[in-house]
Amino acid sequence: MTRTMTDELSAHVGESITIQGWLHKKRLLGGLNFITLRDRRGLAQSLVDNKDELEKLRGLQVGTILSLSGTVIADERAPGGAELHDVTVEVMVPVTDEPPIEIDKPISHKPENLDTLFEYRVLNVRNLQEQKIFKIRASLTRYIREYLTEREFVEIDTPKLLAEATEGGAEVFQLDYFGKTATLAQSPQFYKQIMVGAFERVYEIGHSYRAEPSATTRHLTELTMLDIEMGFVESHQEVMDMVAGFTKNALSRVYDEHAADLKSLNAPELKLTDEVPKFTIAEIHEMYTKATGTDTAKEKDLIPDEERWIAEYARKQLGSDLVYATDFPKEAGKFYHKFKDEEGTVAWADLLFRGLEIATVPLRENSYEKMIEQMTNAGLDVNHEGFRYYLQAFKYGLPQHGGCGFGIDRLVEKTIGLGNVKEATLFPRDINRLTP
Amino acid sequence: MTRTMTDELSAHVGESITIQGWLHKKRLLGGLNFITLRDRRGLAQSLVDNKDELEKLRGLQVGTILSLSGTVIADERAPGGAELHDVTVEVMVPVTDEPPIEIDKPISHKPENLDTLFEYRVLNVRNLQEQKIFKIRASLTRYIREYLTEREFVEIDTPKLLAEATEGGAEVFQLDYFGKTATLAQSPQFYKQIMVGAFERVYEIGHSYRAEPSATTRHLTELTMLDIEMGFVESHQEVMDMVAGFTKNALSRVYDEHAADLKSLNAPELKLTDEVPKFTIAEIHEMYTKATGTDTAKEKDLIPDEERWIAEYARKQLGSDLVYATDFPKEAGKFYHKFKDEEGTVAWADLLFRGLEIATVPLRENSYEKMIEQMTNAGLDVNHEGFRYYLQAFKYGLPQHGGCGFGIDRLVEKTIGLGNVKEATLFPRDINRLTP
Repeated sequence: MTRTMTDELSAHVGESITIQGWLHKKRLLGGLNFITLRDRRGLAQSLVDNKDELEKLRGLQVGTILSLSGTVIADERAPGGAELHDVTVEVMVPVTDEPPIEIDKPISHKPENLDTLFEYRVLNVRNLQEQKIFKIRASLTRYIREYLTEREFVEIDTPKLLAEATEGGAEVFQLDYFGKTATLAQSPQFYKQIMVGAFERVYEIGHSYRAEPSATTRHLTELTMLDIEMGFVESHQEVMDMVAGFTKNALSRVYDEHAADLKSLNAPELKLTDEVPKFTIAEIHEMYTKATGTDTAKEKDLIPDEERWIAEYARKQLGSDLVYATDFPKEAGKFYHKFKDEEGTVAWADLLFRGLEIATVPLRENSYEKMIEQMTNAGLDVNHEGFRYYLQAFKYGLPQHGGCGFGIDRLVEKTIGLGNVKEATLFPRDINRLTP
Repeated sequence: MTRTMTDELSAHVGESITIQGWLHKKRLLGGLNFITLRDRRGLAQSLVDNKDELEKLRGLQVGTILSLSGTVIADERAPGGAELHDVTVEVMVPVTDEPPIEIDKPISHKPENLDTLFEYRVLNVRNLQEQKIFKIRASLTRYIREYLTEREFVEIDTPKLLAEATEGGAEVFQLDYFGKTATLAQSPQFYKQIMVGAFERVYEIGHSYRAEPSATTRHLTELTMLDIEMGFVESHQEVMDMVAGFTKNALSRVYDEHAADLKSLNAPELKLTDEVPKFTIAEIHEMYTKATGTDTAKEKDLIPDEERWIAEYARKQLGSDLVYATDFPKEAGKFYHKFKDEEGTVAWADLLFRGLEIATVPLRENSYEKMIEQMTNAGLDVNHEGFRYYLQAFKYGLPQHGGCGFGIDRLVEKTIGLGNVKEATLFPRDINRLTP
């Protein structure tokens, strides 16, 4: 037996074939009994008219695994333009209980339904509409990998089990490590910076852990981050261009290769420009204040409504779904940032995609002496064991470098136009959810 | 300024160019002063004869970041057949302390040196020989992804933070999750099986966590595993063929594309056959007992010396670095295995590569009723909350499926011919090591 896939029927009109998959829908209309079968490619329709064959399906529910053999007949009304007739039914795995959710209808993604969505994720991902989200996710990730590999970025694999937290103690998960305390990595930042000293250009797609005690539309406790870092850059702009480059490339490809999927998911039209527009934080504050009357001049960061506002401005006025907010005020800078002393700002940009920050794109301080100075100014203990290996990389030579922490979950969310980062995640984790 | 990479010199003979990188070696021979510069592509040699330029390097150590401008001269004695003359030196980042290890010599990988190797990983990975290991690792991973993507495997991303451990409690890391207890995933097995119900074929490359209180050459507490799972298989052999397929493909490609690297690392010659040889556990016991006089007939698994013995047999007698050990005795089976009742064995194979088990390749039980029966027989509580979502996938229809848990760290180790899995890992974790 050779298995034919559901999307291949129209190439086999007149032939005897076998398809295998899940019973997706049964429509028993007396004389005309239609069965829809689902496999990894999609759906196919079969007409079962023999009573003995029909009898085999008695009492069997959606999800039953079937092998259907028959003759392919062209029929414009059938999905894919062909269906199976004179069907012989083989029940491979019977399902006798009715599933608790309808597989052929997607669960609504309205905020009030999300708990149900996640609770029944095991079954709702059998829905073809829901599957598209995760196929798009896999493709976006693949496109980014390909783009970076072509540009000599080496994929690295860094530990998530760390000895001691050096920053942000409150948001760090702690675990028992053979009687000692270990923490889960919040980011691979230190490791990727260290690796610039070896490979110049590195990337990693992996999990980061944030013990954020909030359950918002933006937060997960287990995130999937793309981290890149590149050395020997001459300017912050060079890093921003690389990040914009792989983002635009991945978006363009996904809108091309998944055009039908994105359309059926009601994804917004994609608007990209040759150069990603950029505005300093100060400029955005000024534009926003002028436009809305709300004075944000003294904010360190953009307020969420400003992110939405500048995104809308970029989309409507400049034709771009992407916009960079640059030059954060120096008060927002961390010890590892490159400060632009004359401007009183930090060489740090946020990449906004359709109103959501999807990446932070900073340039790093790379001088050992300045790092020691900036850490001391920030009140950090430069002799802390947790900084020892990190500082080694600087002491023995790191070129000017920068990179990004880029939220894969957020990219998928906004590409499709979902409303919550968790919808873009197979099994999301937050303060309230550790299952399934 | 356009940066020329070190491996491009011979294409620019007679031209004025600039290279940038790390001071790798300084040989000041009075009149002839050679500087070796390292960048992400390799090394280039420069002759600095101007005293003022030489003066700029006074007191500067290996690791100093330099920009060297000069004229390219063909010289067969130089690496790459060309070197830079009439050099102008720009010190981009000075390093004034001598590094604690020699960067231009790899740290020995002898067992007694491994602690030093890992302790100085930040710097020793700047050694070109050491870097090859991790470039080979990145390539092997990439080849496997490409192979699986071409065969319709969908990449999934499953959680490592779990609510409750259902198996192997002693080897599970526990952490405080907002006042509750969470555990770190030992394997994505349940999730990938669930996903067969949606995508039929899935894979993930991610971390698995094992609280193994031992520090052997085979064990890590944080592993990188490739997990695949495929549905609608007709036989165990079909799964074994897929795993053998991507393994052979990745090995062939890496021996082709990294031929020089592997040779310089003293990797063994690659021996592959069209079909991976396979022997049942009983056959191996019999062959081994006959050959060595040590009776292993009553062992559930292969003893380590048998793994080495059968690997040597396969390599020498059959010309294969890969060999499958199949049909584990039913006593070794777990509740999720497919049992071959007539043979009294389990449809479970181990893939051995050069004497080390690199993958477990089982067929799964896919009938809901049999799963319940096998779990009950194994003394498990089928109503345990930790099994609820997993069993949902079976109750509502899973086709026959199988897959593998495949150790990426071990694959890299054995491809290169290293002696310890930790040598193949950038920042290994075991009971004694949580840093760097």
